[in-house]
Amino acid sequence: MNYQEFFEQEIDKIKEEGRYRVFANVKRITGSFPKAIVQMNGISKEATLWCSNDYLGMGHNADVLEEMSRVILSSGSGAGGTRNISGTTPYHTLLEEELAKWHKCDSALVFTSGYVANETTLSTLASKIPECIVLSDALNHASMIEGISHSRARKFIFRHNDMDHLKSFLDQIPKYQPKIIAVESVYSMEGDVAPLDEILDLARKYQALTYVDEVHAVGMYGDDGAGKIHEMNLDGEFDLIQGTLGKAIGCIGGYIAGGKSIVDFVRSFSPGFIFTTALPPAITSGALKSIQILKNASDLRAVHQEAVTQTKQALSKAGLPFLDHYTHIIPFIIGDAAKCKEISKTLFQEFGIYVQPINYPTVPKGSERFRITPTPYHTKEDIDHLVKALSLLMKEL
Amino acid sequence: MNYQEFFEQEIDKIKEEGRYRVFANVKRITGSFPKAIVQMNGISKEATLWCSNDYLGMGHNADVLEEMSRVILSSGSGAGGTRNISGTTPYHTLLEEELAKWHKCDSALVFTSGYVANETTLSTLASKIPECIVLSDALNHASMIEGISHSRARKFIFRHNDMDHLKSFLDQIPKYQPKIIAVESVYSMEGDVAPLDEILDLARKYQALTYVDEVHAVGMYGDDGAGKIHEMNLDGEFDLIQGTLGKAIGCIGGYIAGGKSIVDFVRSFSPGFIFTTALPPAITSGALKSIQILKNASDLRAVHQEAVTQTKQALSKAGLPFLDHYTHIIPFIIGDAAKCKEISKTLFQEFGIYVQPINYPTVPKGSERFRITPTPYHTKEDIDHLVKALSLLMKEL
Repeated sequence: MNYQEFFEQEIDKIKEEGRYRVFANVKRITGSFPKAIVQMNGISKEATLWCSNDYLGMGHNADVLEEMSRVILSSGSGAGGTRNISGTTPYHTLLEEELAKWHKCDSALVFTSGYVANETTLSTLASKIPECIVLSDALNHASMIEGISHSRARKFIFRHNDMDHLKSFLDQIPKYQPKIIAVESVYSMEGDVAPLDEILDLARKYQALTYVDEVHAVGMYGDDGAGKIHEMNLDGEFDLIQGTLGKAIGCIGGYIAGGKSIVDFVRSFSPGFIFTTALPPAITSGALKSIQILKNASDLRAVHQEAVTQTKQALSKAGLPFLDHYTHIIPFIIGDAAKCKEISKTLFQEFGIYVQPINYPTVPKGSERFRITPTPYHTKEDIDHLVKALSLLMKEL
Repeated sequence: MNYQEFFEQEIDKIKEEGRYRVFANVKRITGSFPKAIVQMNGISKEATLWCSNDYLGMGHNADVLEEMSRVILSSGSGAGGTRNISGTTPYHTLLEEELAKWHKCDSALVFTSGYVANETTLSTLASKIPECIVLSDALNHASMIEGISHSRARKFIFRHNDMDHLKSFLDQIPKYQPKIIAVESVYSMEGDVAPLDEILDLARKYQALTYVDEVHAVGMYGDDGAGKIHEMNLDGEFDLIQGTLGKAIGCIGGYIAGGKSIVDFVRSFSPGFIFTTALPPAITSGALKSIQILKNASDLRAVHQEAVTQTKQALSKAGLPFLDHYTHIIPFIIGDAAKCKEISKTLFQEFGIYVQPINYPTVPKGSERFRITPTPYHTKEDIDHLVKALSLLMKEL
């Protein structure tokens, strides 16, 4: 086989489909968020970021940065080993204790990323629990899909947020047979919320384990920012909560929180946890500081929600189509990979707005979109400028 | 099913086998490496680390720490998105350029960990290349095994470093059929080296793609520290080199380096690369600085090799059994999980030596061991103290 030719052909295919990815180079400068120096298609200029997952701007919080800098200078750049072989530091332990408390659980476990947390936890549970079946929402994140697939467990994919469809599958499975219902609380690309209470009722009735990915909710919802589960008064009701340190918390890493035995089980058997270098102490200390701030950041969350509301209102007023599911994520559907790319390019070049086109495989073909994420630091002027630019370009379309 | 009972039973089983893992808490203090404050079994005291993967102590290099601190304070704590959605920074791009140059390749691609680099690259290649078969060394790292397994490609596991066995499998596969030979250059738990030249000859003869995990070699071997491939004058001969930023380089993260089209293929199709938050800019800038230092650190490597030689000589002189494969990793086989744990505990409590017991599933049952890793910063006194303590405890055994 001519390997090189094969790789080139596959790349050519996605180029023809308009979904070959060229990464924009984004240089963020502390204090100027959401402005950054963006380099795209050979042009470098200041632009306003409208697609960052640093939802609350905590990635530039002075206290977090100072704490991280302090720990780097005092403890070093890396952990130097896996969690079991010299890589656990007091900062890891403290962070895990804080995460457990935040989520009102016995235990928490930190992974190198949210992706790894999902992949290895779901894969481990569904493969090790005998005869386990997984019931998975159709819009679950790629990392959950990968984990479920890697487990080789039997699976049922229910239509997104469709409880009747979920129930119809549960009815087909013997009650005594182990099963996991796996969902997200806030879905990344739709921005909508799962009916967590109904899922819980079904899980109880059919004796299923419950797994909830809260990556787009932690730091963001509920009086202490612990997420949608807390906001919906469902603390302690789900078997595992999965979260990230890389979005609202502003660092990198992922975690699970839950009962003592299930977390210890994942800790003891998950290859993605066991066989990898631990996060650097400065990352875990920075995440810890960020969470401590976020627990008492209702004001920041209110300013954020206000920016989201203002953005939605301005889009509505301009007659621009977007999905509104009462969260901070605003999907703006274009429906064509090439057009999406073209508009993104013009927004950047003509208007100094950076919003990345989202295409397949992140969203289904035909639903290519922008995923607009206002932050507390987007001003009224930023919002007006975005909406004006989008109005102009959508008319041209 | 009673899930809780199941998890508890599985935990009890590994407790009975003596391989339940309790993490030591290791607080490293800049400037005092390899000494650290270690907390184990409720006792906290200063101890000398003898099991760190921060092989060259770069995790405490002042220039690296300063660079990381600078970038945290100027660019923030996290990347704020996936590589495609606002998460690529100039530090990522510069690091990838440097890695490509270091490995004398066209391109390089950075992942959140070496684990993810192996898992998602091998899984993507072996599943996307039609009818691909993988030939994998029996001692390949768990992350490679996971990646190969997840691809669901047909696989042949050849006996460790056994070229006749590898050839016997290659003879069974049609020449035109795509195949990958996947090996490590230095094996973590044995400390031995792959016959890379023979593997290359076979790969050419049978038209196989070659994948070499250099995580225990990068920074460590060859005049510029680029690894075993460079040391063996085999630059540019393998299709993909995989490395880590988390061991000799002292940070966290992983990468691949290779030809333009194969790297672009992995970049475009690997879920573990696409769907995850990018490494923080300070991590990529710190790794870049570390590599720039390591390229000109022949003196440091010489001091390191001298410490390794001294340790081996002292162990030999004391009549203590260890495996010597001419690398910096010294496997010291105990062969029993409970005894390994007991000796480790005594070494810490009585002698202030921290060396983690390594047990199943990291090594096969019956080959439980210590994995002793001298660094340039272990003194003659440290070495003498270790060997004296081990002599005493092995006699008692």
